Amino acid sequence: MAAPAPLSPLAPKSYPDLPPIEGARFSTAAAGIKYKGRTDVMLALLDKGTQVAGVFTTSKCPSAPVDWCRSKLKGGKARALVVNSGNANAFTGRNGLEQAKFTATLAARATGAPAGEIFLASTGVIGEPLDATKFEGVFEQLVASARPSAMLEAAKAIMTTDTYPKVATATAMIGGVEVTINGMAKGAGMIAPDMATMLSYVFTDAPIAAEALQSMLSKAVQGSFNAITVDSDTSTSDTLMLFATGAAARRGAPFIDSARDRRLAGFRNALEVVLLDLAHQVVRDGEGCRKFVEIRVEGAASAKAARRIAFSIANSPLVKTAIAGEDANWGRIVAAVGKAGEKADRDRLEIWFGDIRVAHKGLRDPGYSEAAASAYMKGEKIDICVDVGAGGKGAATVWTCDLTKDYVAINGDYRS
Amino acid sequence: MAAPAPLSPLAPKSYPDLPPIEGARFSTAAAGIKYKGRTDVMLALLDKGTQVAGVFTTSKCPSAPVDWCRSKLKGGKARALVVNSGNANAFTGRNGLEQAKFTATLAARATGAPAGEIFLASTGVIGEPLDATKFEGVFEQLVASARPSAMLEAAKAIMTTDTYPKVATATAMIGGVEVTINGMAKGAGMIAPDMATMLSYVFTDAPIAAEALQSMLSKAVQGSFNAITVDSDTSTSDTLMLFATGAAARRGAPFIDSARDRRLAGFRNALEVVLLDLAHQVVRDGEGCRKFVEIRVEGAASAKAARRIAFSIANSPLVKTAIAGEDANWGRIVAAVGKAGEKADRDRLEIWFGDIRVAHKGLRDPGYSEAAASAYMKGEKIDICVDVGAGGKGAATVWTCDLTKDYVAINGDYRS
Repeated sequence: MAAPAPLSPLAPKSYPDLPPIEGARFSTAAAGIKYKGRTDVMLALLDKGTQVAGVFTTSKCPSAPVDWCRSKLKGGKARALVVNSGNANAFTGRNGLEQAKFTATLAARATGAPAGEIFLASTGVIGEPLDATKFEGVFEQLVASARPSAMLEAAKAIMTTDTYPKVATATAMIGGVEVTINGMAKGAGMIAPDMATMLSYVFTDAPIAAEALQSMLSKAVQGSFNAITVDSDTSTSDTLMLFATGAAARRGAPFIDSARDRRLAGFRNALEVVLLDLAHQVVRDGEGCRKFVEIRVEGAASAKAARRIAFSIANSPLVKTAIAGEDANWGRIVAAVGKAGEKADRDRLEIWFGDIRVAHKGLRDPGYSEAAASAYMKGEKIDICVDVGAGGKGAATVWTCDLTKDYVAINGDYRS
Repeated sequence: MAAPAPLSPLAPKSYPDLPPIEGARFSTAAAGIKYKGRTDVMLALLDKGTQVAGVFTTSKCPSAPVDWCRSKLKGGKARALVVNSGNANAFTGRNGLEQAKFTATLAARATGAPAGEIFLASTGVIGEPLDATKFEGVFEQLVASARPSAMLEAAKAIMTTDTYPKVATATAMIGGVEVTINGMAKGAGMIAPDMATMLSYVFTDAPIAAEALQSMLSKAVQGSFNAITVDSDTSTSDTLMLFATGAAARRGAPFIDSARDRRLAGFRNALEVVLLDLAHQVVRDGEGCRKFVEIRVEGAASAKAARRIAFSIANSPLVKTAIAGEDANWGRIVAAVGKAGEKADRDRLEIWFGDIRVAHKGLRDPGYSEAAASAYMKGEKIDICVDVGAGGKGAATVWTCDLTKDYVAINGDYRS
């Protein structure tokens, strides 16, 4: 393991206070999976009746815990979540599933909950066997020490190459009662769309049925976690789960069983805010990053086409290295638009860096100033807007970071 | 412009002797497009009757010279080829096409050939207007100095971030007469499949009709230039052309007008050898590269699926940085297989590094030796073979290089 990377220059200046979620308690421990001198396992204990929804990696080679969660999600109920860092328990064959089962059995014994209501995740190196016996004896302490205020510690325990823990919070009103949504995420590399995300867990005290949660979550992920990329590499372990303890019912919040219920408008919005905040934090901790980049594509034939073009730009190594070099090399954006395979009119293309129009009607803007564009590129937040001139109303926004020498350094010796 | 990068460690130890191609002459000049103190324009003069074929970028934003060549190719005849480096004349609008036309007019005047039989290419920065008046007065000298033996100099004049010129040669028998095939290529970055390549020109004295040339070229490109990637970025200027002067007819070679003619077997094979040699040389000059990587995928549902999985591995920044770090991190190969979206059986996956089997039946090989795998990764040529276990016969081989800090450095300040 290389020396820990220094804090991302794009890290948030402070962590938000996370109000406790009634019905959810957290604890952490050091099980010695891989790292020394830090916590590497976290437990979330959830009150009986907690409803759960989840979205997972679309990888054809998912990890054992992803297989486990997918099969358990059908029940819609959750009593505990166990996440370890340092080992992904991915590509570990039948033994990997055995280790996942054993972990769930240990957790069930310690918590008194059915193993089928215990959700799992593992993150870290792929292909190394996970030794779940390391969790023996750990769960008793985890259950005993679980408390509502330990969510930030939990977010720290699941970090791998992350340089900071990622948490977010928001409130919403349901039937005149305030409910809270807290979320955490981890992830800094192997971040790409077509998936959920690395790992992200969102907790709320709102009384909402699993089916309604699932519907909202599946939609909200499109504009947040599925709209980010650090390095175009989709993980085998991507997991995003939403747990609703329902504890706000005791304060009068109505139980909601359909995503179409209009009383969910505020909640849905707050959920989107939390997910987008966490997704941005993942990009801002992108391995080796120094710039946070927003890419907006307009004028495409469809929203899907716009999204494909936006990701073609966001995943282009040449665009990302130019941004790292603070080089207003918009020609590489043209190339990335061209290779996306979607309809674009080269001779109507417009490109903006912030409020500087650099390209207009298929060529360099007549008023283009290299000095102004270069000055803009020195900023920490780079906004790129492209109208591809296909005459449609398709638009999409995605987020990424720059590609620096540090990304290469971090990933050239991760395992050693 | 940064200081020129040092010679790629994967550069060929020597250049082959290029026998002259009867009917083709070459010359170079320094037009001062961008670079100082080096040649930046090359002319290939072709005898009357030269047949031509070409494949071009699939980019939706092709350069002006690509548009020009596509429209002129229909005639099947070529008299000259003009290529400049330093400026791609891409995304330069109507003016770009005017500059291309003007260049062809200048070349037509100096050579006495019709402008419609003059082919063009420009390579370098995208989006900068090309000032074709810089070619005025250059063509007379180019025409006067053209000679059959100057092909290596021509290959040097079209280099941009290339650290060495790329040439290859082969011979074949047609109807008992020996014909020669010489090729050149340039390209080191913005190299990806789904295209022709950066720029590559192949010359032969064989008497073969344009239509037959086109058929052979379109097929041969699939296993060569369309099977390589440096950085997944498809260029706006990719061009591969094949010129047949037909001069060998004077030595008794029969004129061949159909690609189905069996007498082309040897020629087709030699053409594939030249294209693959050039394509490998492009990868071996990949920006910042230190390792040449061959990726073979077997056991996929179809050849297309195998190819998609192979490119998913070859374009994965995490796989490429691991190789740069000499890290046998095969877990990242599993992730890249998983994200490709094609059928794969995680629990039957096999991965080989050279002759070391690292993964077997969906988990680390029981006989896996980290020391042996690490020693293998220190080599200059890395062979990765993956059986994805989908039970099919689909197979594909692609080539790429590692992703190093130098790639980021080269592309972070290319324009400045």
